[in-house]
Amino acid sequence: MPEFARLPGFRDFPPEELGLKSHILDAWRRVSRRYGFEEYDGPPLEPLELYVEKSGDEIVEQLYAFEDKGGRWVALRPEMTPSLARILAERARALPKPIRWFTAPQLFRYERQQRGRLREHFQWNVDIVGETDVAADAEVLAVAIDGLRELGLTSEDFRARVSHRGLLAALLGRCGVREEAVPAAFTAIDKLGRETGERTRARLAEIGLGREQLDEVLSLFEGADTVAIASRYGEDAAVARDLRSVTRCFELLDAMGLADYVQFDLTIVRGLAYYTGTVFELFDCRGELRAICGGGRYDRLLELVGGDPLPAVGFGMGDVVLAELLQERRLAPPYSRAVDYYIVTIGPAERPLALRIARRLRDRGHSVSYALADQSVKKQFSSANAEGARRVVILGPEEAAAGVVKVRDMASGGESTISLEELGG
Amino acid sequence: MPEFARLPGFRDFPPEELGLKSHILDAWRRVSRRYGFEEYDGPPLEPLELYVEKSGDEIVEQLYAFEDKGGRWVALRPEMTPSLARILAERARALPKPIRWFTAPQLFRYERQQRGRLREHFQWNVDIVGETDVAADAEVLAVAIDGLRELGLTSEDFRARVSHRGLLAALLGRCGVREEAVPAAFTAIDKLGRETGERTRARLAEIGLGREQLDEVLSLFEGADTVAIASRYGEDAAVARDLRSVTRCFELLDAMGLADYVQFDLTIVRGLAYYTGTVFELFDCRGELRAICGGGRYDRLLELVGGDPLPAVGFGMGDVVLAELLQERRLAPPYSRAVDYYIVTIGPAERPLALRIARRLRDRGHSVSYALADQSVKKQFSSANAEGARRVVILGPEEAAAGVVKVRDMASGGESTISLEELGG
Repeated sequence: MPEFARLPGFRDFPPEELGLKSHILDAWRRVSRRYGFEEYDGPPLEPLELYVEKSGDEIVEQLYAFEDKGGRWVALRPEMTPSLARILAERARALPKPIRWFTAPQLFRYERQQRGRLREHFQWNVDIVGETDVAADAEVLAVAIDGLRELGLTSEDFRARVSHRGLLAALLGRCGVREEAVPAAFTAIDKLGRETGERTRARLAEIGLGREQLDEVLSLFEGADTVAIASRYGEDAAVARDLRSVTRCFELLDAMGLADYVQFDLTIVRGLAYYTGTVFELFDCRGELRAICGGGRYDRLLELVGGDPLPAVGFGMGDVVLAELLQERRLAPPYSRAVDYYIVTIGPAERPLALRIARRLRDRGHSVSYALADQSVKKQFSSANAEGARRVVILGPEEAAAGVVKVRDMASGGESTISLEELGG
Repeated sequence: MPEFARLPGFRDFPPEELGLKSHILDAWRRVSRRYGFEEYDGPPLEPLELYVEKSGDEIVEQLYAFEDKGGRWVALRPEMTPSLARILAERARALPKPIRWFTAPQLFRYERQQRGRLREHFQWNVDIVGETDVAADAEVLAVAIDGLRELGLTSEDFRARVSHRGLLAALLGRCGVREEAVPAAFTAIDKLGRETGERTRARLAEIGLGREQLDEVLSLFEGADTVAIASRYGEDAAVARDLRSVTRCFELLDAMGLADYVQFDLTIVRGLAYYTGTVFELFDCRGELRAICGGGRYDRLLELVGGDPLPAVGFGMGDVVLAELLQERRLAPPYSRAVDYYIVTIGPAERPLALRIARRLRDRGHSVSYALADQSVKKQFSSANAEGARRVVILGPEEAAAGVVKVRDMASGGESTISLEELGG
């Protein structure tokens, strides 16, 4: 029983567990670069006021916030977008648009009640800033989808559900929801499927909807596709405009060969207050896990933190739900150690030569290990196995005198004698 | 003037600044792997008590500590070794020894007074746990040295100064320093060269040294090499034992071809309370910067956090001083953007084909960019340049009809026409 435990909700990453996290983060980085995105990062600690009123209510309630020694109220970052907005407020003017940036920071939330739930995770953030065209929305969606494809997941495993907040607001307006009641309606819709139908009706009734209006609102979510919506509400200018945007987004994803990965779903609302247009979430097809990814367009956030107005669209994808999905689908790489060479010395006299060979091999980029204290040859071979050595270099007095070494290939068991020079000794 | 500023002492990493940090951390990772080390990580937030009394006084005074919502006292990690010890306290028993682990976490300190000084940095930590042989000390020293060599630095640029705390304590004993006064003497010696000679003498006098003893202590640091020490104090068993350890460490580093990078220096003490044997620091040769790296043997730390007793040796190397040194020596890579392909479309009709080609190229691992909104060909070429495109694919109606594309090599300016198939279209 260790005297000191780690804090509840935090993870240690010993090598066998860091492996999966690195596998995920490496895939994210590869895909980001393939789409021409550049990596950035910000501080894990930010001024508290950066989050208050700019983020969703849920986030603000769960801030890991405290007063520092200098009397400043600070918070461990719960999401990356406010930091991005803060950084761009200073710099965006000098940067060519659109800005394509990504990052994969560790984020923090403090929920007092929920035991066993993590208080940190790593989150891939991909954003395009400075482009109003819906092609930017399609592009970040494609990045999110490719991030999962890169890890071996297919359209059998996950799906992106895409909606548009402006479209939903316009449709709600057509159903008689007053503008000031739209946020409350969004909340009710966001909880569809997670709450009983009765509870949803009660929420919608609370905002003053009559029975008929209420039925009309609920009918929007019963498999309504873009064609059905267009034929029923298409004469409304706002509906028509936002519907064109959604349709275009799907056309672009289709051209990218990703049609199988996306579906229109008006119930997607997203909790964060700052989204203004397209919104989307990625889910596992079996519906067993929480959302893998969420994102959308947020055209007004940069103004809120004091920058120039700049349109933006992006997403966040966490490592925890994704790791669960990969493990479930047997796509998590098994943990294994590996080293190119392990040098076995017959006696201590060969140690200096072993070190010289190790240096040359390492200078050429090979990984090399060996016993640090004098050990039996048997023990050294057992360490070579434990460390996953591909080749073992065997150094004895005769070999040293002859200027050669024996090299054993550990997979085939084959041995060859090669000159020290050839090995760089 | 942005409304929100980042916290004082924290860095933003926009892509042009992340580049240097990644350059450094990538080099650290490559070198660690070359020596057969495995990467691990821990939480940035730890229980406060993990640091109190286990770390040096300086660190405890500078903790970024607070009480969380659950009434726990927690601290942003100021160093990694206590987390390593905590993780190993749970796991070391099941792991084959020696354990070779590395990590490169962000660490935090809060100094109230010093304006302009950073409150965070990234620190490479490399540790060998479970091996008493001084070969382990030499091995981690070699890793530290190679970390800098990998970045282009040579023995003209930096030097490792190596000492041994046990040796120094034994020598101080021989000079008449009582055992309980050794820590105070260490503090005085640690400040040698940073304080006036007068202040040092005052510090040593305070611990009860007479004039003669004081002169003898100070003479230890006037270019005393291991041979001189051996001839004067070698009959002392503790001196002789620790001197053998130091000599052996230098022999091993010599065998590794690193003799030019190391020197014996008895003034190296290290602030951290838990070091027990070899201690070392790496400095720039011009002596303009603070230490680049510090480390040593800490054989008792794991017991202190509730684990089995396990010998250990390791170091920490920060990114900030190192980045300054690289910039001074013009070894910092220039910032540049690069993308394998930029696709230029003559008109909107070619957009779907462009997206299809992009998908195929990306699926083969290439990075691809293009304009997201309709733009003039001239504007698209200017973006291709700004994004550092190596090749530009030009798609017009004639090419599309003929099933070909033009590809321009941006370095040579040469153009060739290739079939869509060849490009994966």
